[in-house]
Amino acid sequence: MKKINLQEKFQLFSEHWTPKIIGELNGQHVKIAKVKGEFVWHDHANEDELFMVIKGELKILFQDEENTLKEGEISIVPKGVLHKPIATEECWILLFEPKQIKHTGDVKSKLTKVDGEWI
Amino acid sequence: MKKINLQEKFQLFSEHWTPKIIGELNGQHVKIAKVKGEFVWHDHANEDELFMVIKGELKILFQDEENTLKEGEISIVPKGVLHKPIATEECWILLFEPKQIKHTGDVKSKLTKVDGEWI
Repeated sequence: MKKINLQEKFQLFSEHWTPKIIGELNGQHVKIAKVKGEFVWHDHANEDELFMVIKGELKILFQDEENTLKEGEISIVPKGVLHKPIATEECWILLFEPKQIKHTGDVKSKLTKVDGEWI
Repeated sequence: MKKINLQEKFQLFSEHWTPKIIGELNGQHVKIAKVKGEFVWHDHANEDELFMVIKGELKILFQDEENTLKEGEISIVPKGVLHKPIATEECWILLFEPKQIKHTGDVKSKLTKVDGEWI
Protein backbone atom coordinates (compact mmCIF):
# COMPACT_ATOMS: atom_id res chain seq x y z
CA MET A 1 0.00 0.00 0.00
CA LYS A 2 1.57 3.28 -1.12
CA LYS A 3 2.68 5.89 1.39
CA ILE A 4 2.83 9.54 0.32
CA ASN A 5 5.43 11.75 2.01
CA LEU A 6 4.61 15.42 1.52
CA GLN A 7 8.13 16.75 2.07
CA GLU A 8 9.57 14.28 -0.46
CA LYS A 9 6.91 15.19 -3.01
CA PHE A 10 7.64 18.92 -2.64
CA GLN A 11 11.31 18.24 -3.45
CA LEU A 12 10.37 16.91 -6.89
CA PHE A 13 9.52 20.24 -8.53
CA SER A 14 10.18 23.95 -8.21
CA GLU A 15 7.81 25.76 -10.57
CA HIS A 16 5.05 27.94 -9.20
CA TRP A 17 1.27 27.73 -9.73
CA THR A 18 1.51 24.24 -11.23
CA PRO A 19 -0.46 21.80 -9.09
CA LYS A 20 0.86 18.22 -9.07
CA ILE A 21 -1.40 15.29 -8.34
CA ILE A 22 -0.26 13.07 -5.46
CA GLY A 23 -3.39 11.05 -4.77
CA GLU A 24 -6.87 10.11 -5.93
CA LEU A 25 -9.94 8.98 -4.01
CA ASN A 26 -13.69 9.03 -4.55
CA GLY A 27 -13.40 11.09 -7.72
CA GLN A 28 -11.26 13.69 -5.98
CA HIS A 29 -7.60 14.57 -6.43
CA VAL A 30 -5.10 15.44 -3.73
CA LYS A 31 -2.64 17.93 -5.19
CA ILE A 32 0.29 19.99 -3.99
CA ALA A 33 1.63 23.24 -5.39
CA LYS A 34 4.31 25.82 -4.76
CA VAL A 35 2.97 29.31 -5.22
CA LYS A 36 4.53 32.77 -5.23
CA GLY A 37 3.14 36.07 -6.44
CA GLU A 38 -0.41 36.75 -7.58
CA PHE A 39 -2.70 34.24 -9.22
CA VAL A 40 -5.70 35.28 -11.32
CA TRP A 41 -9.25 35.97 -10.17
CA HIS A 42 -11.38 32.95 -11.01
CA ASP A 43 -14.09 30.66 -9.73
CA HIS A 44 -15.14 27.05 -10.27
CA ALA A 45 -18.83 26.85 -11.20
CA ASN A 46 -19.35 23.29 -9.95
CA GLU A 47 -16.50 22.45 -7.61
CA ASP A 48 -15.65 23.35 -4.04
CA GLU A 49 -11.90 23.63 -3.44
CA LEU A 50 -9.85 23.08 -0.29
CA PHE A 51 -6.59 24.93 0.36
CA MET A 52 -4.29 23.85 3.19
CA VAL A 53 -1.00 25.60 3.88
CA ILE A 54 1.93 23.24 4.45
CA LYS A 55 4.65 25.93 4.60
CA GLY A 56 4.57 29.70 4.45
CA GLU A 57 1.57 31.97 4.17
CA LEU A 58 -1.21 32.19 1.60
CA LYS A 59 -3.63 35.06 1.21
CA ILE A 60 -6.90 34.36 -0.57
CA LEU A 61 -8.82 37.41 -1.74
CA PHE A 62 -12.59 37.21 -2.08
CA GLN A 63 -14.83 39.95 -3.39
CA ASP A 64 -15.63 41.41 0.04
CA GLU A 65 -13.01 39.93 2.35
CA GLU A 66 -9.74 38.06 2.52
CA ASN A 67 -8.25 35.11 4.38
CA THR A 68 -4.62 34.80 5.38
CA LEU A 69 -3.70 31.16 5.96
CA LYS A 70 -0.60 30.09 7.86
CA GLU A 71 0.89 26.61 8.19
CA GLY A 72 -1.76 24.13 9.37
CA GLU A 73 -4.66 26.34 8.32
CA ILE A 74 -7.37 25.40 5.83
CA SER A 75 -9.90 27.30 3.77
CA ILE A 76 -12.69 25.76 1.71
CA VAL A 77 -13.77 27.92 -1.22
CA PRO A 78 -17.34 27.02 -2.24
CA LYS A 79 -18.29 26.55 -5.88
CA GLY A 80 -19.07 29.79 -7.70
CA VAL A 81 -17.10 32.00 -5.30
CA LEU A 82 -14.57 34.29 -6.99
CA HIS A 83 -11.14 34.09 -5.40
CA LYS A 84 -7.57 35.14 -6.04
CA PRO A 85 -4.69 33.46 -4.21
CA ILE A 86 -1.59 35.52 -3.43
CA ALA A 87 1.70 34.58 -1.77
CA THR A 88 4.28 37.26 -1.04
CA GLU A 89 6.94 34.64 -0.36
CA GLU A 90 6.96 31.10 -1.71
CA CYS A 91 4.23 29.07 -0.07
CA TRP A 92 3.55 25.32 -0.22
CA ILE A 93 -0.06 24.24 -0.35
CA LEU A 94 -2.13 21.09 -0.47
CA LEU A 95 -5.37 21.03 -2.47
CA PHE A 96 -8.38 18.67 -2.36
CA GLU A 97 -10.71 19.04 -5.30
CA PRO A 98 -12.75 17.03 -7.83
CA LYS A 99 -10.75 15.40 -10.63
CA GLN A 100 -12.57 17.34 -13.34
CA ILE A 101 -11.82 20.79 -11.91
CA LYS A 102 -10.25 23.34 -14.27
CA HIS A 103 -7.25 25.21 -12.92
CA THR A 104 -8.65 28.72 -13.44
CA GLY A 105 -12.31 27.85 -14.03
CA ASP A 106 -13.55 29.49 -17.24
CA VAL A 107 -10.83 32.15 -17.06
CA LYS A 108 -7.98 31.80 -19.56
CA SER A 109 -4.64 33.07 -18.30
CA LYS A 110 -0.98 32.50 -19.07
CA LEU A 111 -0.91 30.84 -15.66
CA THR A 112 -3.61 28.32 -16.64
CA LYS A 113 -2.47 24.68 -16.68
CA VAL A 114 -4.67 22.29 -18.63
CA ASP A 115 -3.57 18.93 -17.32
CA GLY A 116 -2.55 17.98 -13.84
CA GLU A 117 0.66 15.96 -13.73
CA TRP A 118 1.12 13.07 -11.30
CA ILE A 119 4.29 13.06 -9.26
CA MET B 1 -14.93 33.05 4.59
CA LYS B 2 -14.16 30.62 7.39
CA LYS B 3 -10.60 29.66 8.22
CA ILE B 4 -9.91 26.32 9.90
CA ASN B 5 -6.91 26.09 12.20
CA LEU B 6 -5.93 22.46 12.80
CA GLN B 7 -4.08 23.03 16.09
CA GLU B 8 -7.05 24.97 17.51
CA LYS B 9 -9.48 22.25 16.44
CA PHE B 10 -7.38 19.52 18.08
CA GLN B 11 -7.56 21.44 21.39
CA LEU B 12 -11.36 21.10 21.45
CA PHE B 13 -11.54 17.41 22.35
CA SER B 14 -9.52 14.66 23.95
CA GLU B 15 -11.34 11.37 23.33
CA HIS B 16 -9.79 8.74 21.09
CA TRP B 17 -11.20 7.12 17.94
CA THR B 18 -13.96 9.72 17.63
CA PRO B 19 -13.58 11.59 14.33
CA LYS B 20 -14.80 15.19 14.37
CA ILE B 21 -15.94 16.92 11.20
CA ILE B 22 -14.14 20.19 10.43
CA GLY B 23 -15.11 20.76 6.82
CA GLU B 24 -17.31 19.68 3.94
CA LEU B 25 -16.80 19.91 0.19
CA ASN B 26 -18.08 18.08 -2.86
CA GLY B 27 -19.93 15.48 -0.78
CA GLN B 28 -16.80 14.73 1.23
CA HIS B 29 -15.99 15.43 4.87
CA VAL B 30 -12.69 16.60 6.28
CA LYS B 31 -12.33 15.12 9.76
CA ILE B 32 -9.75 15.03 12.51
CA ALA B 33 -9.26 12.41 15.21
CA LYS B 34 -7.00 11.59 18.11
CA VAL B 35 -6.19 7.91 18.20
CA LYS B 36 -4.35 5.65 20.61
CA GLY B 37 -4.30 1.89 20.89
CA GLU B 38 -5.77 -0.59 18.45
CA PHE B 39 -8.81 0.03 16.28
CA VAL B 40 -10.87 -2.79 14.75
CA TRP B 41 -10.35 -4.57 11.47
CA HIS B 42 -12.87 -3.18 8.96
CA ASP B 43 -13.33 -2.02 5.41
CA HIS B 44 -15.60 0.41 3.59
CA ALA B 45 -17.32 -1.32 0.66
CA ASN B 46 -17.90 1.86 -1.36
CA GLU B 47 -15.59 4.54 -0.04
CA ASP B 48 -11.89 5.25 -0.37
CA GLU B 49 -10.41 6.82 2.78
CA LEU B 50 -7.46 9.16 3.23
CA PHE B 51 -5.35 9.19 6.40
CA MET B 52 -2.83 11.99 6.99
CA VAL B 53 -0.74 12.14 10.15
CA ILE B 54 -0.60 15.58 11.76
CA LYS B 55 1.29 14.53 14.91
CA GLY B 56 2.78 11.26 16.07
CA GLU B 57 2.86 7.95 14.25
CA LEU B 58 0.09 5.76 12.87
CA LYS B 59 0.45 2.17 11.80
CA ILE B 60 -2.13 0.78 9.40
CA LEU B 61 -2.27 -2.99 9.10
CA PHE B 62 -3.49 -4.54 5.87
CA GLN B 63 -3.95 -8.25 5.25
CA ASP B 64 -0.51 -8.76 3.71
CA GLU B 65 1.47 -5.68 4.68
CA GLU B 66 1.53 -2.62 6.89
CA ASN B 67 2.20 1.10 6.57
CA THR B 68 3.75 3.25 9.27
CA LEU B 69 2.89 6.90 8.73
CA LYS B 70 4.76 9.75 10.38
CA GLU B 71 3.88 13.43 10.49
CA GLY B 72 3.25 14.76 6.97
CA GLU B 73 2.63 11.31 5.52
CA ILE B 74 -0.54 10.16 3.80
CA SER B 75 -2.08 6.80 2.95
CA ILE B 76 -5.16 6.28 0.82
CA VAL B 77 -7.02 3.08 1.64
CA PRO B 78 -9.10 1.98 -1.37
CA LYS B 79 -12.69 0.83 -0.96
CA GLY B 80 -13.05 -2.79 0.04
CA VAL B 81 -9.56 -3.08 1.54
CA LEU B 82 -9.48 -4.45 5.09
CA HIS B 83 -7.41 -2.31 7.42
CA LYS B 84 -6.71 -1.86 11.11
CA PRO B 85 -5.21 1.40 12.41
CA ILE B 86 -2.94 1.23 15.46
CA ALA B 87 -1.17 3.96 17.42
CA THR B 88 1.21 3.03 20.22
CA GLU B 89 1.26 6.63 21.48
CA GLU B 90 -1.46 9.21 20.90
CA CYS B 91 -1.51 10.26 17.28
CA TRP B 92 -3.41 13.09 15.60
CA ILE B 93 -4.79 12.40 12.15
CA LEU B 94 -6.73 14.12 9.41
CA LEU B 95 -9.25 12.13 7.36
CA PHE B 96 -10.82 12.89 4.02
CA GLU B 97 -13.74 10.67 3.07
CA PRO B 98 -17.29 10.68 1.65
CA LYS B 99 -19.99 12.07 3.95
CA GLN B 100 -21.92 8.79 4.00
CA ILE B 101 -19.01 6.63 5.15
CA LYS B 102 -19.61 4.41 8.20
CA HIS B 103 -16.95 4.54 10.89
CA THR B 104 -16.20 0.82 10.96
CA GLY B 105 -17.91 -0.21 7.73
CA ASP B 106 -20.28 -3.12 8.36
CA VAL B 107 -18.37 -4.16 11.48
CA LYS B 108 -20.05 -3.40 14.82
CA SER B 109 -17.65 -2.64 17.65
CA LYS B 110 -17.76 -0.81 20.95
CA LEU B 111 -15.50 1.69 19.21
CA THR B 112 -18.04 2.36 16.44
CA LYS B 113 -19.40 5.92 16.33
CA VAL B 114 -22.62 6.40 14.41
CA ASP B 115 -22.71 10.13 13.86
CA GLY B 116 -19.86 12.45 13.12
CA GLU B 117 -19.92 15.60 15.26
CA TRP B 118 -18.94 18.98 13.84
CA ILE B 119 -16.45 20.99 15.84
